[in-house]
This record gives sequence, structure tokens and C-alpha cells, in this order.
Amino acid sequence: MLKDWIKADRPSDEEIAERLKTARFELNARQMAIKEKKLPVLVIMDGWGGAGKGGVLGKVIKNLDPRFYKTETLGKPSEDEKRRPFLYRYFVRIPEAGQFSFFDGSWMDELTRARLQGDMDKEQYHRHLTSIKRFERTLSDNGYLCVKFFFHISKNEQKKRLKELEEDKDTSWRVEKWDRWQNSHYDECMDVYDEYLEATNQFVAPWYFIDSKNRKWAELQVTELLVRSIDTALKNIGHSATVLQNTFPLKRMPALSEIELDLALSDEEYARELKDLQERLAELHNKIYRKKIPVVIAYEGWDAAGKGGNIKRLTAALDPRGFEVHPIASPEPHEKNRHYLWRFWKRLPKDGHIAIFDRSWYGRVMVERLEGFCSENDWQRAYNEINEFEKELDDWGAVIVKFWVQIDKDTQLARFTDRQNTPEKQWKITDEDWRNREKWDLYEDAVDEMIKKTSTDYAPWFILESNDKHYARIKALRTVIEEIEKKL
Amino acid sequence: MLKDWIKADRPSDEEIAERLKTARFELNARQMAIKEKKLPVLVIMDGWGGAGKGGVLGKVIKNLDPRFYKTETLGKPSEDEKRRPFLYRYFVRIPEAGQFSFFDGSWMDELTRARLQGDMDKEQYHRHLTSIKRFERTLSDNGYLCVKFFFHISKNEQKKRLKELEEDKDTSWRVEKWDRWQNSHYDECMDVYDEYLEATNQFVAPWYFIDSKNRKWAELQVTELLVRSIDTALKNIGHSATVLQNTFPLKRMPALSEIELDLALSDEEYARELKDLQERLAELHNKIYRKKIPVVIAYEGWDAAGKGGNIKRLTAALDPRGFEVHPIASPEPHEKNRHYLWRFWKRLPKDGHIAIFDRSWYGRVMVERLEGFCSENDWQRAYNEINEFEKELDDWGAVIVKFWVQIDKDTQLARFTDRQNTPEKQWKITDEDWRNREKWDLYEDAVDEMIKKTSTDYAPWFILESNDKHYARIKALRTVIEEIEKKL
Repeated sequence: MLKDWIKADRPSDEEIAERLKTARFELNARQMAIKEKKLPVLVIMDGWGGAGKGGVLGKVIKNLDPRFYKTETLGKPSEDEKRRPFLYRYFVRIPEAGQFSFFDGSWMDELTRARLQGDMDKEQYHRHLTSIKRFERTLSDNGYLCVKFFFHISKNEQKKRLKELEEDKDTSWRVEKWDRWQNSHYDECMDVYDEYLEATNQFVAPWYFIDSKNRKWAELQVTELLVRSIDTALKNIGHSATVLQNTFPLKRMPALSEIELDLALSDEEYARELKDLQERLAELHNKIYRKKIPVVIAYEGWDAAGKGGNIKRLTAALDPRGFEVHPIASPEPHEKNRHYLWRFWKRLPKDGHIAIFDRSWYGRVMVERLEGFCSENDWQRAYNEINEFEKELDDWGAVIVKFWVQIDKDTQLARFTDRQNTPEKQWKITDEDWRNREKWDLYEDAVDEMIKKTSTDYAPWFILESNDKHYARIKALRTVIEEIEKKL
Repeated sequence: MLKDWIKADRPSDEEIAERLKTARFELNARQMAIKEKKLPVLVIMDGWGGAGKGGVLGKVIKNLDPRFYKTETLGKPSEDEKRRPFLYRYFVRIPEAGQFSFFDGSWMDELTRARLQGDMDKEQYHRHLTSIKRFERTLSDNGYLCVKFFFHISKNEQKKRLKELEEDKDTSWRVEKWDRWQNSHYDECMDVYDEYLEATNQFVAPWYFIDSKNRKWAELQVTELLVRSIDTALKNIGHSATVLQNTFPLKRMPALSEIELDLALSDEEYARELKDLQERLAELHNKIYRKKIPVVIAYEGWDAAGKGGNIKRLTAALDPRGFEVHPIASPEPHEKNRHYLWRFWKRLPKDGHIAIFDRSWYGRVMVERLEGFCSENDWQRAYNEINEFEKELDDWGAVIVKFWVQIDKDTQLARFTDRQNTPEKQWKITDEDWRNREKWDLYEDAVDEMIKKTSTDYAPWFILESNDKHYARIKALRTVIEEIEKKL
């Protein structure tokens, strides 16, 4: 599509100057609208080396108050970033509501460069393309404006510019080896870029090509397109996005009411199994560390189901340098101002490490759904968004274990009463627990729907029958061990 | 993506039988929900020859009342269809609200077959891919559920089935030459299908692969997926779709208030020019007929601006066998029950013919917007939908001319008064005209926005200054002639 692109006629210098004055003024005026309407704006600047992205970016941000934007230079991933899922470094940098983020370079650069350098096979390339399409779409679905610019210059123009930069010793450092390689392989790059641009030219995040031969003209195109894009996005504020069809293969799961809860272990069995399994898990922890396999474990379950004690038996077997437990409470303001999965992306482990989530991203389809903390459209969309999120973890090679810790209503009552009557346990029980208990049936419906819709074959739910806590702990250990072993 | 697809484990025959009973019952139950909620459902069945699409389709419709569905067998385009835009034969067949349409074969077949047979170059292929993506998306945006199945069998299975069909003289007619070609070029077909499936696997209309080795299992997969898709679509009823960013290059156009209306022609000039231009147009009409160039002309303008008289001067020059005038009033019930562009797709001419629309698809962003006949989201989305529609006409090679017939408010008043006072003109003036006149300023804003947002470089608006009707008529003739000449 870049190849077939017909450059718009460049206006006269006078017209450019005139329109630029208007456009700069309008962009400046938009920042208050963005702030008020809490619109997050992600601006991506890709293009040929030497096409002048940096220069235009410098001009554009001059119209903005520094409190309203961040700029990010996304070169090659760092060593730390290489140990995270592909989208990690991009997802953690998305803007807050009401703010701009300008990315100088993006996932396009990472993907096409790897392709051109032969570092990525076709299958991996296509998997990452799918991730990118999902990423851009879920941002849009969650109210983000994503504007993508590709700065275009011809082969000769690039050659000329690189030469000029190199000949001046003040600017020669700006020409990388990669830029020269790009120029001498211009046609090959064009083919790869063209294919990428076509594949990622989504309706919700289309590409704009910027004719970058003339700097002021490039700035004008970018500024006018930004203003127009913001105006369109402001019209979409409050619109709900389509609930997508599920396309992930799902396991058929039982309803909570069908789960047998009379499973139990004797004290001796428990003690013996606990010791054996913890030893086994400790060994595996070393192996996954050496093989750089990431492990993500999520716990969800009824209040007083025994999540905490269960997690303790797991961590007791682990080397403290290789795991982290993340207790998840309600989001903080800076977290609420971003895509609801942002705070979980931020907490993802490095490869070879284990992250245990005590409550998780499933809050969206349980407490947030039932307490009205998000719209119905938000939680309806979340099943797919969560399946997509976990697919990123799966693509990364992670062991994913999701536990639902199940007890019956009578057991919960007994444990609540015990907590209330035992001074050293009283901190564990609050009025909220009693209020939640009243909504047991609503929660049960929500959990049934959640388990049905998010038990993908790459990240199914595991039910821990926890009327007998011993039984649940042993099953959790065994499940984690089995799932790790599958990946070794 | 078909290549990497991992077939779900086929359940036992008993489980299939059991689940099929449930799924059939559920599908049957859904037809009333669809009717009530006015959901239109388009089901597309593509796949390998001999994979059993027809058999499954036969089973699926057994669960439905014939009043609720239509089936369409889409083989190769007919001679008439070949003379229309690429999407024509598909767009005119979309279901009514509350109904199913089952397509046995689709645009996939047309596109991939042409590609495999070498009848289509890469550029045209990509242009059609874009059309398909827009088509499926605009259906979804307008409340359609579009479910796409690809029936998959292995090369050997296909070979075996074709042989069986051929050996039985009752069924041998069903095996086409194309099916045998497909089997002997299975891998080549697979590559082309895979690329197509990947490119058209949209979030709003994803592909489902059906493991078709076992017929009952294929039916079960289709039936269960249909039920699930319908349930998701029912949740989306009433959701508004995202207003997309404009990506079409736009011409900068004046506001109506900036248009000079004191342009006029003397009677002699008018008479001379009219004669010359009508003769020229008559010649051109023959040329476009021979060269099979389609012409689409749309008239919009103020009441009493002189549209009718203007159109007459155009048609006076034309051979009646080669043009049609379509007066556009409010849509009829069967038109209202479909995508709002459907009735215009239906009225598109054959190539070499001229269609003149007296009022047009722009009603959406004028009268429907101002009278509340559609939602704000509907008309906000329409600018892009219309640009996409006209892009289809442009891709087809059509001459597209859109006239806005402009007069000032005083001129309208004078003409209204004249109509009222002249018995033979009284039929031309209604209370509605007076009511519309009261909304002049609102209409003017809407028209300014429309002209600004839909003057693409391939289908710009032409303003006819019509305070002097003679001037406007001559300008219309001259414009049509110029635009036709550009395409010759």
C-alpha cells in the first residue's frame, strides 16, 4: 500500500505557512479537550531512517504543555525487555487518560527489522502480527486513540540526507549502521514494510503516510491529521465497542454446582505428599530458572476459601529470589487511568521467574461486573480481552495456571464465624465479606460464565476443591508441577 | 492460519449425537430471538470441494422455519453480474433484519479462484481484499452478524470423496472440473487460501475452520458455533459502532456561504451552449456505451434549487436505452430492514450505462440526520461508509459526479411563492418544503460538513450555482462531459 500511495500535491510554501499557523493553534487547543474528556492519545512515528521523524516530533510537542505528553524513544529492546512478552515494553508505556504518548519508533521497527535481518521465522512473524492487531484494537476498544504515521522519503532523498548528516561531525553520530543498510537495501525494505503496513492497516488504527521530502510540509500533514483524528476520537467518547465473537478453542468445564466437595486427605497423607511435592517443586524451580521459562499463577476463589494458606504452601518450596506474590486490591488512580490490564502487564515476571497473583485480572468479570465498577459492555468484552492477554503469555512460552478455589456456602459460614470468634483471625473478616456473601448466587453465575468463557486450551481453569484445605493445597502443588513439567 | 490450525479432538459418536440434539434445539430457539431483535444473520460457507458444505447446510436449515432464511448458491458471477461492481452480487443478497441468509460459496471463492487461475493481478487482488474487509466491517457496524465457515478436509480425503461421487452416476454431475483441479493442486490452493484467510480474519468477522472429515461432527461444530455467535451478536444489539478515522484523501472545499451566486448566462449564450454541449454529451454517451464505462450522477440541493430541470437538460441528450433516473424518496419497509446503502447498490447501472440519482445516499447525513431518522452514531459513521461506497464505484471504473445545486434563501422564497401562486406548479410545493425552509441554517451546517467530509479526490462534489438556472444547467453538462472525457 505504501508502494501504491499517491502523494498529495504539496501546497505552496505560503499556503503551508498559513495552514501550519492554524493547525498548531488547533492542536494546542485540543489538549484541554483531551484532558477534560480523559482521552488517551498514542502517536506512533515510524518511517525511513533520515526521514525526519525526530524533527517533526520536536515541532509538534512545541504546541503542547509538557504536563500533557510523554515521549518515548523505542529503539531495540533492552536485555530486561527481551525477557518479557513481546508486547510488554509497549503495553507498559501506554498513555494515561487525558495525555499524549509519542513513540519515536514502535513495534513495527522491532518486527520488520527482525524480519529483514533474518532473526525471525515466518510463523513467529505472523504470531506477532496477530498480537499487534489485538493490541491496537483493544486499546481502541478501551477508548484509546492510536494514530500511526509512516514518514516516507525516496531512496535518493534518504541517501542525500544520510550523507549530509554524516559529513557534519555534529550530526554524524545520528546515522546508524542500520540506516545505511536500509538505504542500500531500500527495495527489499520497501517490500517488507509494505507487507507489514498492509497487514496492520486496521480500521480502528489506520496508517497515515507522511510525504517527508519537505520538513514544514511533513509537520503540517502530521499536525492536521492529529487534530482531525482527535476530533473524531472525541466523538467516540462514551461509545461502547463491539463484543467480539470468541475464536479461541475452549474446554468444556463443569458448573460450580457440579463440583464434588467431599474430597479430603488424612493428616498423614497430607504431610507426606506436601513434603514430596514441595521437594519436587523446588527442583523444578531451578530448572525453569535455567531454561528461562516464565510461570504465571493466578488465584481466584470465594472469601475464606483458603487462597492465602494455599499460596503459602507453594511459595514455601520456592527460592525467594525467583518468585513474587502480587496481592491485587482495587486499582489506584494512575492504574484506573489506563487500560485495566496495564497493572497486570506491569507485574509480569522476567522469564525463568514465577509470579503468583492473589486475585487477578479476573476482577473485571467478577467484582467489577457485580459492583458496577465497569460498564456491562466493558465486562462483556473482557472475556475475549483476557483470552488474548493469556495468549500473549502462552506465545511467550509461559506456564499459565489459574486456580478457582471452591468451597460451599456452609463452609464459608463456618470459617467466617470462626474468624469472628478468634481474636487473632479477626483482621481477616470485614463487613464487606458478609456483604459479598449475600451476593453468593450472583457471584456463582458470574464465576460459571467466567470459567466457561476463559478456559482456553492454552490456559484452562483448575478447580481446587477446598472444603478440605489440605486436599486443595496438595492439588495445587500437583497441578503446578504437572503444568511446569509439560513445558520442560 | 489454516495451515497451523489444530483440529479439535473429535468427541465420541455418542457425545456428538447428544450434543447435536441440544445444539439443534438451541438453534431452532434462536430464530425467534433473531426475529424479535431484528438481527440479520449472514452465514458464509466456504471450503474445499467435496468437503460437504452443501450437506451440512441442508442439515442446518432443517432446524429453521423457511420464513426465516434464504439460501444462495454463489458460483461464478453471471454475465450481468460481471458488468457491476465487484461487491454488487454480494451486497444485493444481504439478509433482511430478523432473517438468515446462507451463502454456499462467497467472495472468497471468486477471489481465490481468479488468483489461482491467474486471471487477477496482485494489485487488483489487494484492492478486492480491501473491499471485502470494508464490506464485512460495514455490515457488522450496521448490526449484521456475519459468520464465516471454512470446511476443511485433507488432500487424500478430498481425493477419496471426489472419486466416490464420480463413480456413482447419480452424483457424478456434482464433481466439477474445478474440484479435480483443486485436488491436483492442493498445496498451491492451500497457500492461496491461507493468505486469503489470514488477510480477512477480522475481529468483527472471524473465520471458523470446520473439521469436515466426519459429517455429523461437522454439523455439530457449525450448529454450536452458530448458536454461540448469535448469542454474542444479541448482546451487541443497540451498541453503536466506532466512528472511524478518515483515510481517504480529501479536497479542500468552500463553505456554502463562500459561494458566489451572481453567476448568470444570457438567453443567447444559454441556447448556444446548451445545443453544443448536448450534442457533445450524446456523442460521449455512445463512447461510454462501447467502452463499457459506467456513469453515476447524484443530485442533491435545496428545495426549488432546480434539480429537476437540470436533470432534464442532461437526459435530453441521452439515448433512453442507456440511462435511468432514480428519484429517491424515503425508504420502503423492505429497504429499511437492510443496510441503508442496499437500495442504492440495487440501483447501480450496468457498465456502459448512466444512472442519475435525484437525491441519493446523502440523505443519511442530511434529512435522516436532521429529522432523527437515524442515530447520531449512524450519520457520524456514514461519511466514511459513503466514501467507501464511492470507492467501490471508482474501483469499478465509474465516472462519478455529485452535484450540490445551490441557491440563496431569497431565491428559494421567490420560487416557493411563485409555485404557490401558479396553479400548474402548485403540486411542486408542500407544507414540508416550508418546514424544511425553517431549518435552513441546520441544513446548511449539515451540507457544509457533508461536502467537507465526502469530497474525496476520486469523487468530489461539484457545486452548481443555481440562482440562475441556465448557468447551473450549462455547468452541469460541462462537468459531466469533462468527467467522462477524463475516463476515456
